[in-house]
Amino acid sequence: MIDSQRYPRLSRIQVPADLRRFPEEELPAIAEELRAYLIEQVALVGGHFGAGLGVIELTVALHWLYDTPLDRLVWDVGHQSYPHKILTGRRDSIHTVKQKDGVAPFPKRDESEYDTLGVGHSSTSISAALGMAVALQRRGDERKVVAVIGDGAMTAGMAFEALAHAGGMSDPEPNLLVILNDNQMSISENVGGVTKMLGQLTSSRTLNAIREGGKKLLGDKRKKPAAKFVRRWEEHWKGMFVPSTFFEEVGFHYTGPIDGHDLPALLSAMKTLKGLKGPQLLHIITTKGKGYELAEGDQIGYHAVGPFDPEKGLVSKPGAKKPTYTDVFSDWLCDMAAADERLMGITPAMREGSGLVRYSKEYPQRYFDVAIAEQHAVTLAAGMAIEGAKPVVAIYSTFLQRGYDQLVHDVAIQDLDVLFAIDRGGVVGPDGATHAGNLDLSYLRCVPNMVVMAPADEDECRKMLSTGFQYRGPAAVRYPRGTGPGAAIQPGLDTLPIGKAELRRSGKRIALLAFGAIVPAAEQVAAELGLTLVNMRFVKPLDRALILELAQSHEGFATMEDNVVAGGAGSGVAELLAAEGIVLPVLHLGLPDEFQHHASREQLLAEAGLDAASIRASLIKRWPQLAAQPAPQSAAG
Amino acid sequence: MIDSQRYPRLSRIQVPADLRRFPEEELPAIAEELRAYLIEQVALVGGHFGAGLGVIELTVALHWLYDTPLDRLVWDVGHQSYPHKILTGRRDSIHTVKQKDGVAPFPKRDESEYDTLGVGHSSTSISAALGMAVALQRRGDERKVVAVIGDGAMTAGMAFEALAHAGGMSDPEPNLLVILNDNQMSISENVGGVTKMLGQLTSSRTLNAIREGGKKLLGDKRKKPAAKFVRRWEEHWKGMFVPSTFFEEVGFHYTGPIDGHDLPALLSAMKTLKGLKGPQLLHIITTKGKGYELAEGDQIGYHAVGPFDPEKGLVSKPGAKKPTYTDVFSDWLCDMAAADERLMGITPAMREGSGLVRYSKEYPQRYFDVAIAEQHAVTLAAGMAIEGAKPVVAIYSTFLQRGYDQLVHDVAIQDLDVLFAIDRGGVVGPDGATHAGNLDLSYLRCVPNMVVMAPADEDECRKMLSTGFQYRGPAAVRYPRGTGPGAAIQPGLDTLPIGKAELRRSGKRIALLAFGAIVPAAEQVAAELGLTLVNMRFVKPLDRALILELAQSHEGFATMEDNVVAGGAGSGVAELLAAEGIVLPVLHLGLPDEFQHHASREQLLAEAGLDAASIRASLIKRWPQLAAQPAPQSAAG
Repeated sequence: MIDSQRYPRLSRIQVPADLRRFPEEELPAIAEELRAYLIEQVALVGGHFGAGLGVIELTVALHWLYDTPLDRLVWDVGHQSYPHKILTGRRDSIHTVKQKDGVAPFPKRDESEYDTLGVGHSSTSISAALGMAVALQRRGDERKVVAVIGDGAMTAGMAFEALAHAGGMSDPEPNLLVILNDNQMSISENVGGVTKMLGQLTSSRTLNAIREGGKKLLGDKRKKPAAKFVRRWEEHWKGMFVPSTFFEEVGFHYTGPIDGHDLPALLSAMKTLKGLKGPQLLHIITTKGKGYELAEGDQIGYHAVGPFDPEKGLVSKPGAKKPTYTDVFSDWLCDMAAADERLMGITPAMREGSGLVRYSKEYPQRYFDVAIAEQHAVTLAAGMAIEGAKPVVAIYSTFLQRGYDQLVHDVAIQDLDVLFAIDRGGVVGPDGATHAGNLDLSYLRCVPNMVVMAPADEDECRKMLSTGFQYRGPAAVRYPRGTGPGAAIQPGLDTLPIGKAELRRSGKRIALLAFGAIVPAAEQVAAELGLTLVNMRFVKPLDRALILELAQSHEGFATMEDNVVAGGAGSGVAELLAAEGIVLPVLHLGLPDEFQHHASREQLLAEAGLDAASIRASLIKRWPQLAAQPAPQSAAG
Repeated sequence: MIDSQRYPRLSRIQVPADLRRFPEEELPAIAEELRAYLIEQVALVGGHFGAGLGVIELTVALHWLYDTPLDRLVWDVGHQSYPHKILTGRRDSIHTVKQKDGVAPFPKRDESEYDTLGVGHSSTSISAALGMAVALQRRGDERKVVAVIGDGAMTAGMAFEALAHAGGMSDPEPNLLVILNDNQMSISENVGGVTKMLGQLTSSRTLNAIREGGKKLLGDKRKKPAAKFVRRWEEHWKGMFVPSTFFEEVGFHYTGPIDGHDLPALLSAMKTLKGLKGPQLLHIITTKGKGYELAEGDQIGYHAVGPFDPEKGLVSKPGAKKPTYTDVFSDWLCDMAAADERLMGITPAMREGSGLVRYSKEYPQRYFDVAIAEQHAVTLAAGMAIEGAKPVVAIYSTFLQRGYDQLVHDVAIQDLDVLFAIDRGGVVGPDGATHAGNLDLSYLRCVPNMVVMAPADEDECRKMLSTGFQYRGPAAVRYPRGTGPGAAIQPGLDTLPIGKAELRRSGKRIALLAFGAIVPAAEQVAAELGLTLVNMRFVKPLDRALILELAQSHEGFATMEDNVVAGGAGSGVAELLAAEGIVLPVLHLGLPDEFQHHASREQLLAEAGLDAASIRASLIKRWPQLAAQPAPQSAAG
């Protein structure tokens, strides 16, 4: 329960209607309580941190000024939604965030009527808010729609598409407020032309404000932001006479920049904007991690945290732990870059998450952070491959969905030499359905010309990366989040033969054909039940010869993978058998045909029946005669 | 063979090296010959027309000034590449365009070394050209890279992503020339904020040029373009003091606007730009259809044409022909909009192609052309659905790949009520691999919450559209290009039961389970061989009860679909059997695991073994005993 002495105001706020009973003068104090409570709660259990601290004042202002949930509030990405959740009925449960059956880490429609749009991926807010505004307008509903989007998310093409559509509409214009929360930061450092553009804009506007004297665009508490402005102003003085902005050019009415931590100034601007029609853009400047000094000083480190002591901050973890698959990729990338100067590493704004930090320092000339721009990332790689370079696109499985057309049209149809290093394939866990990599084997396997691999362990991951890199054509290595079984990693750059599986255990009756992360669990079950186990390695092309051979000598196949069964790797095995005219009982184990909620990776795998015990049970259910096999202990040797 | 009397210069040009032997003064005459030849050849056989006429001067200038193919030229979309093809070795074969084994309608890497990037989808050129420029630069290669992109293609997010990345790069800056070919037109009329922005830019720049007096930004032949400038200037006078542009804001050096039909002015600007480093943008103004008066006057009608008499132009086709599936959708959309005012129709710049012309006129308040912006189109629909509207996203199968993440993340995970009307599903034909809809059943079927339908005929298509519209959740109806079997279309808005197949013929031994456009051919074969035929209707959910029933009474199943076999609808049938523990011989007929080249739809279906004769042969090969069935004539009754 919230401590009513420590939080005399926040403890009286369950929902925004409670907030709206407070007079405007008390809002700064409420903001301070909200900030302190967020620090306390996240320190307790971990979660997204810096983004929420940056929008404390904005969140209070929005829910106080607007009649939520009737008025509609859309948070882009959602990393910053914890303060919103605390003010909208989830104050006392925020400590369950990311846990199974707990509060979701992002806005989620079925969790709260205040969460209008489920998010997780960036840059969807303007499109969705425009759709909402238009639908309301067409039926004569006057309620307001506000989208809050960061400068990082503004780099994605779909944000541009949405701005251009909204700004270009007429008869009638859509009534929509877009709040651009500019902190020069997304998850990685922001880069590219959009950052350049916003910098110019801010500096020129600030200068105008200074010139115009009385017009108070910036609040008084301008410590950090002001310093930032001066720096920008110095950097970009050449652009300082720019009276128009991109936003105005595409048809928005622009207001700003405003210090997003100056609650009175912010409210003043927002009150004016609330009364205006047409597409409005409010540009606010905030500091990620605001109010928690350590987080302000290390914005990337404090983006998302585990539990920590608020007094001490994050303590660096003890070394020598098991490397994650991301670490494996990270080391491989540097080693291969040393061996082959044609290698070019590309990330769509996920330098830290995808493991390119060291590479970016050691090979800055061959490192390309394209900002949140998955479509461009893939086609940029295609262009590099055309000129004989060997690009590696490091991308999360779920975000590759954004570059799907480019993978098909610009890489696969052209049969270009691009390697996709796909992190967070399969079950991801605490980030929920929006971040799941459950579909990739299905949407990749149907694409002609692709080679698709899934490693069973860390060493194999490294070898597959080398294999895909050396293969002259489009290839993908898809590996899971977190750590693997802990295989010893050989330091070389050896490759594997394309399309060859690894027969790990010759057994009887049933052959388990396992893909990727499921192999260790499958191996355990195979040993327990005396079955054949194949580490399939290649989702495409399949090891046809081995499959046909095993089909001759077994009563049935069980395929298993951490991908949906629908169209997955196991389906490929069944298609091969069908094409060969072989009729054999096949059991497909994989992820269900439903979106999985947030929980730990292990919980979700178990729920899907992909832990060893569940696999064993499924096999025995399908083939009861297997229950008569030798007991685990005797077969384990 | 080309007529050397009529084309005294063009007849001496096989490749650009020949062109470069001509002195600069003769280039306008060469351009005139090229224009006349293009009109002659396209009139003869049909093809893309207006876009090529608009870039005659540009094409001549590029190949004369740059050392192609060593210097790299990237054409966005490729509709405009016929003049390029004529000048680069394909002058005498351009009359085979779009035909099987003939010249491809778009640049294609394996057709010519002058075609650096295969295209078809829009807005990929800047990304690819940047990748090429960077790869060349990193190895110290000085050759030049030029991308040509239309203003229509500039509306897509990925073009923005690429501009922002290129403009934001430093140490070193990339050496890249982007030529923005601004004709205020893509395939449909251009709309939205980008058009607004370019209009402002042009007017302000023009005014500046007039003010600066001597500075000749515009050529003399300014008839049409000049009139356009004045109109824009009047419309946008408020923006006329804009000395900066979006392109400069993101980091490009901007030159323009230049009259793209004034060859001397164009060459003069291009010569200057060729010597400059860093990211350059040249803005040229052209007229689509330039030099063929009828095409200038009807730019949409002359975008792509069939054979016509150059003297008479296009003759409107006789009425009362069989409606296409697009026509079926078009009529349904208007009828459903009349019945339900919640319907909102969305198209990403394909008003004509997707059949929304009448709807856009009858329901302008509920019609949304979002420009080439598939990502936004899908999430806009999600936003509308959140507010209780019933959006219909009309989209080509191949372009839905661009909105795949949005379909998964913003529609399916949220389980929102959006209907996808997917045109050009399956084999498309003359436009080649880039426009094929061969993958959609695979990439849709793996997505939880989706209902996926494929109609066997026109009437069923209408009913499925009503079904998907009434269904409260995400649904897709995927129909083929062109006409169907010619079923009588019932005028109502009747729906079909979700997940119920239609048993069309009860036969013996083998049950043919056919999806969508393949049903008529399958029906013919079933009749010939006395087999059971099911029109499956639903790819997802499958008609489980019927499949289980038929599995009991048949020796085997043959599934058939105009989608790749890998992960397709037939694989879903096999998965269902496996999940039920049913072991039954299954034959999957579908499209191959390769990209199909351009040819007629019928040719490609036959090549894939999906015409009636091939289906029959495949069945008999798999089940030789079927050959002993009654002869066709006796079974056909």
